[in-house]
Amino acid sequence: MIVVMKTNARKEHVSAIIKRVESAGCKVHPIIGAERTVIDVIGDGTVIDKRQIVRMKGVEHVMPITKPYKAASREFKPQDTVIEVGGVTIGGKDLVVMAGPCSVEGRTQLIELAHACKEAGAHILRGGAYKPRTSPYSFQGLGEEGLRYLAEAREATGMPIITEVMDPGLVPLVCDYADILQVGTRNMQNYSLLNAVGRSQKPVLLKRSMIGTTKEWLMCAEYILSHGNSQVMLCERGIRANETETRNTFDISAIPVIKQLSHLPIIADPSHATGMWEYVGATAKAAVAAGADGLIIEVHQQPDRAWSDGSQSLKPERFARLVKEMRAVAQAVGRDIQTDDQSGYFNGTGLANKPFNQPLKDRPVANP
Amino acid sequence: MIVVMKTNARKEHVSAIIKRVESAGCKVHPIIGAERTVIDVIGDGTVIDKRQIVRMKGVEHVMPITKPYKAASREFKPQDTVIEVGGVTIGGKDLVVMAGPCSVEGRTQLIELAHACKEAGAHILRGGAYKPRTSPYSFQGLGEEGLRYLAEAREATGMPIITEVMDPGLVPLVCDYADILQVGTRNMQNYSLLNAVGRSQKPVLLKRSMIGTTKEWLMCAEYILSHGNSQVMLCERGIRANETETRNTFDISAIPVIKQLSHLPIIADPSHATGMWEYVGATAKAAVAAGADGLIIEVHQQPDRAWSDGSQSLKPERFARLVKEMRAVAQAVGRDIQTDDQSGYFNGTGLANKPFNQPLKDRPVANP
Amino acid sequence: MIVVMKTNARKEHVSAIIKRVESAGCKVHPIIGAERTVIDVIGDGTVIDKRQIVRMKGVEHVMPITKPYKAASREFKPQDTVIEVGGVTIGGKDLVVMAGPCSVEGRTQLIELAHACKEAGAHILRGGAYKPRTSPYSFQGLGEEGLRYLAEAREATGMPIITEVMDPGLVPLVCDYADILQVGTRNMQNYSLLNAVGRSQKPVLLKRSMIGTTKEWLMCAEYILSHGNSQVMLCERGIRANETETRNTFDISAIPVIKQLSHLPIIADPSHATGMWEYVGATAKAAVAAGADGLIIEVHQQPDRAWSDGSQSLKPERFARLVKEMRAVAQAVGRDIQTDDQSGYFNGTGLANKPFNQPLKDRPVANP
Amino acid sequence: MIVVMKTNARKEHVSAIIKRVESAGCKVHPIIGAERTVIDVIGDGTVIDKRQIVRMKGVEHVMPITKPYKAASREFKPQDTVIEVGGVTIGGKDLVVMAGPCSVEGRTQLIELAHACKEAGAHILRGGAYKPRTSPYSFQGLGEEGLRYLAEAREATGMPIITEVMDPGLVPLVCDYADILQVGTRNMQNYSLLNAVGRSQKPVLLKRSMIGTTKEWLMCAEYILSHGNSQVMLCERGIRANETETRNTFDISAIPVIKQLSHLPIIADPSHATGMWEYVGATAKAAVAAGADGLIIEVHQQPDRAWSDGSQSLKPERFARLVKEMRAVAQAVGRDIQTDDQSGYFNGTGLANKPFNQPLKDRPVANP
Repeated sequence: MIVVMKTNARKEHVSAIIKRVESAGCKVHPIIGAERTVIDVIGDGTVIDKRQIVRMKGVEHVMPITKPYKAASREFKPQDTVIEVGGVTIGGKDLVVMAGPCSVEGRTQLIELAHACKEAGAHILRGGAYKPRTSPYSFQGLGEEGLRYLAEAREATGMPIITEVMDPGLVPLVCDYADILQVGTRNMQNYSLLNAVGRSQKPVLLKRSMIGTTKEWLMCAEYILSHGNSQVMLCERGIRANETETRNTFDISAIPVIKQLSHLPIIADPSHATGMWEYVGATAKAAVAAGADGLIIEVHQQPDRAWSDGSQSLKPERFARLVKEMRAVAQAVGRDIQTDDQSGYFNGTGLANKPFNQPLKDRPVANP
Repeated sequence: MIVVMKTNARKEHVSAIIKRVESAGCKVHPIIGAERTVIDVIGDGTVIDKRQIVRMKGVEHVMPITKPYKAASREFKPQDTVIEVGGVTIGGKDLVVMAGPCSVEGRTQLIELAHACKEAGAHILRGGAYKPRTSPYSFQGLGEEGLRYLAEAREATGMPIITEVMDPGLVPLVCDYADILQVGTRNMQNYSLLNAVGRSQKPVLLKRSMIGTTKEWLMCAEYILSHGNSQVMLCERGIRANETETRNTFDISAIPVIKQLSHLPIIADPSHATGMWEYVGATAKAAVAAGADGLIIEVHQQPDRAWSDGSQSLKPERFARLVKEMRAVAQAVGRDIQTDDQSGYFNGTGLANKPFNQPLKDRPVANP
Repeated sequence: MIVVMKTNARKEHVSAIIKRVESAGCKVHPIIGAERTVIDVIGDGTVIDKRQIVRMKGVEHVMPITKPYKAASREFKPQDTVIEVGGVTIGGKDLVVMAGPCSVEGRTQLIELAHACKEAGAHILRGGAYKPRTSPYSFQGLGEEGLRYLAEAREATGMPIITEVMDPGLVPLVCDYADILQVGTRNMQNYSLLNAVGRSQKPVLLKRSMIGTTKEWLMCAEYILSHGNSQVMLCERGIRANETETRNTFDISAIPVIKQLSHLPIIADPSHATGMWEYVGATAKAAVAAGADGLIIEVHQQPDRAWSDGSQSLKPERFARLVKEMRAVAQAVGRDIQTDDQSGYFNGTGLANKPFNQPLKDRPVANP
Repeated sequence: MIVVMKTNARKEHVSAIIKRVESAGCKVHPIIGAERTVIDVIGDGTVIDKRQIVRMKGVEHVMPITKPYKAASREFKPQDTVIEVGGVTIGGKDLVVMAGPCSVEGRTQLIELAHACKEAGAHILRGGAYKPRTSPYSFQGLGEEGLRYLAEAREATGMPIITEVMDPGLVPLVCDYADILQVGTRNMQNYSLLNAVGRSQKPVLLKRSMIGTTKEWLMCAEYILSHGNSQVMLCERGIRANETETRNTFDISAIPVIKQLSHLPIIADPSHATGMWEYVGATAKAAVAAGADGLIIEVHQQPDRAWSDGSQSLKPERFARLVKEMRAVAQAVGRDIQTDDQSGYFNGTGLANKPFNQPLKDRPVANP
């Protein structure tokens, strides 16, 4: 922290600051210039609140120098973090694709869709069992039943699964099923939850809040990392701005910014960012061009019957085309979409050979 | 919900929508005009997602008519909600003042400050025992020890206490001590927490998120109310905008907006809104003039030694002057600051007569 | 400007910065500490762009110290600026009220309304002759015809008039009629216009842009002041945030912020801030309580027939009640609404005695 | 416009609205349903302000159906607008690259840089002669002298030139020199300027404002188009959001949104969007992947000596590499960067063969 004194600050003002800072265990280097004194505070800047010092007499400005996050910073760990989940690599040279429905709506629906996503090129299956909904009267997710279906879909397809956890008390349960825990945008600064997923030692995908700066986001990653859980990936999913044609505003530059500030993998969510399937493709390809390490995309067999977020879901055929298009862009920037099949999916094991192509019948059309 | 069809929509498009909506249990009134058809969907609009219908063929626009919140709306309950807590009335004709330190820092500090706030005119004591901090390395609050000090301060002064709860698992513990549970701005959409405080049946102060609209905020109140807990008060504490001279931007018009849309009391927090003690007074008086039912203000004996938020804390003397100034404004708009002493504070009971005026000594100057 | 060097910065990096800054005519004080070097740049910081220096080798951080505005700052001029316009004082102890229609719609309408506003307690008449409209096909104002009606209304009532100017080329024409020039929110950073109204030497009301910080706003005032035109008043009219129940979000704390940073009078516009007549009153009273020097309020005889902004216009009766309510609040904070009639309005001169109470007939109901 | 009446609206409320709308020359189709009446207003919706009708009795909701822009909409003109400027095509299959310094700083600097940009692959030369600066004391541009240098650079390289115009009164002068007029972000809603550039019949690049929605932006394009000037291109340059690591937040999804709503070409400005040269490349490639029709990029020989915006300027070598990288991405999405040399640049005419590779000497290092 650098404390810049006013040009008319008195010696006792400088002394008071030095005393205060030293009593907090920091070293102090006052540097006395011709016009003003500047105080260089060395040591763990987090033990002194900038906002306290600002209020002291004779102070013109206080400027934090040290970044408030440590374990999340590239200075702390120059090489990229690479996370391995069930044979899939996240954060390496090649990109990962996560796909699936917004909500898990049923066993058949999910397993059918998991196969379709896998065939289209996805590596990890997403699906919500606990859903954060703005209305208490809306469908809130199938809960543990949804988790079971996800586990079945993993067995059927070999794809690792990612799902959201909203309650610190449910982290152990969700860990029993999921390969990756997702912390949603509304919970980015839910510190109890961050501590719980940190302690779990499971890989975590941390979504940026609708309002958060990249610095605040990295501070939240730091909460998880501070528990010794180094398997954190960040997910840009759009911030809230004034535009109304899209649900949120995808901050494309956050991708190179995070790459510069941190070693953590960065995943793009073009579905929540745009909220409209028409714009998902362009935004997804842009994220690839900007350097994202992966994508998470909502896919649904019948988007206009989805229990949630239908308007932003792609049909499997369209998703399959998009994976091809993203691969071309990835290659244009010297990367690729992962293609190695380490999951044994096509080896004839699991449910992969069972027929899931029959049309969906008797599905409820709206929230139960 | 009103579905407006395109002028060139076909009959089968209209039929498809009617079928979809009816299958969800809603009544449908298609109204066929000369130029276009409009479909009036009656029934619980929450079971059909607007975003699904938008995606169907022939649809021009979908417009929700019903407000998404019910129990929180003034239509549902025209008369103001009045909450009684330990002899203090919130939401009635006269205003309530909540005051205290950002963090509970110690027993002596808190009890001394509680007396000072009470003497200055406050009715309810605030103080954080669990602190949401952007850094995992910052002081996180004294936890249950802080709750105990709050309870002691209540006994000493007769003031009910309000404190933040961040983790659904800690709601029972916090309920053992607190009179009012506070849900912080970062947790406005933490639905697990909202459900937990809803079930607790304790009075809840729900802070608006930095980015939330009044509609989203009322939806979060609805979560609490949906558990039969009708003792909810809303707290405007500033939203995040571009201005950098203040910590947040206080949305003064939210006060009359909430008064029009809802029956719930609205409390103003000028301390977090401005982040600067210099601006707390003007903002507090403005909130009174705009019709707030109460204020929550940070007070500290030595703001430049506060463990958190010192820059926005008032000293007790200044706070006492502010209460007088707010009273004048309240009277100018036909209200008052509550003055009835129903707590027996000045009756000679409790710790009130014990001397707490000695200077604070040996206090640590920074985060431990 | 303070340049903080990295701890590992080399001597030649420091030298390069010193050379660069000196070659721009600034004095430099390098202050060499134990850990790092800090360079204090004295002189006119505006000749060196912070963004250039940031890019130089060895630099950790660059921090501007000098405020970018000078003539607008309270340091430059500690005492409040008071502007006298046609017998009305703006920026003194007592508040000024400006009122009138959004658009000048016709001679009879305007003069009738001017009388109504005056009788209700307004001091200055507002009315748009040139209207910034989002659609090129909307009514764009009556132009010079509107200015003539304003001048007639001034003669009839003795009230000085304020009207918007949008084009630098029209400043001389508008000056021929108006007493105060208004620069609208969309033109806050229209530097050609700011230069033109600065050169005019007329009093100027500068509205804050929907996105501008107080610092940017003061920089725009500085443009006007830099032409020797010291008669600038600032107008807070709401910024754009996420809330949709109101048209904009009134930044109430901007009032004490401006009072602290600058000597210029600050006027509140609750009409554009809220966009809804229901919320104008609460917001107006809040502005008075927060310390505004005046208000500008839209009033219309028949708001549902107004050619623009009807939804935010008050009827004259309601406006008259609001002035009384604002007066009570002003007195509660030790001020008042101006009451001295220095304009001779009630002396029987002008059109004041002529009958303008007949109902409006044959008025067009929509934009021509 | 669709007016939805309340369920308890009376017949006379419906009649009043019909009368009002008809008196404005619109046709009305009331459609009476079992529960409520809906009024379909046919005709030019721009003559009736939604905000007037909202205020009438019995009205629940008013919903505009017609888009407020016409000439700018893709419905009005389904095929893409293609603009030809000096042999360069904007809006066709292949992308255009505009490049050059933020400010024109001198004749030698500009011509040297123009050659470097051209050799790197740029098609159009950008450079500011009139600069909108936040401080009245900062360098404001060379004015007409700068325009002359731009014209010389065009002669030397064959590249058409684009430059900003800020004052409607200067449009004729700037038209004498420039091939494309740029309307800057602060002037997006400067309607006097939009009218002036509309009348000029010159190609116009319209930057989005920092706060503008895509709808407002298209309305501003409509102002220009309404003068019969169909040569309008839109430029996304970042909006203002909370992120502080970048100067602005590039709204990548605006590219597919504009492509869907409008036929006008869309150009990306990654330099102003990010404000940091490190992030320009990733953002530029993302814009190409998302479907932009072109880019405008700031390039400078010595960014740390640029008179403005040095921190976001690329050096020519880096820019040349970026053009190659963008070409690869363009090809991956089925397009290309234009390569046809229709300007005769390499034919040995103009200054192209003259040596401009000597180092810059004696250049001032800061704003004069």
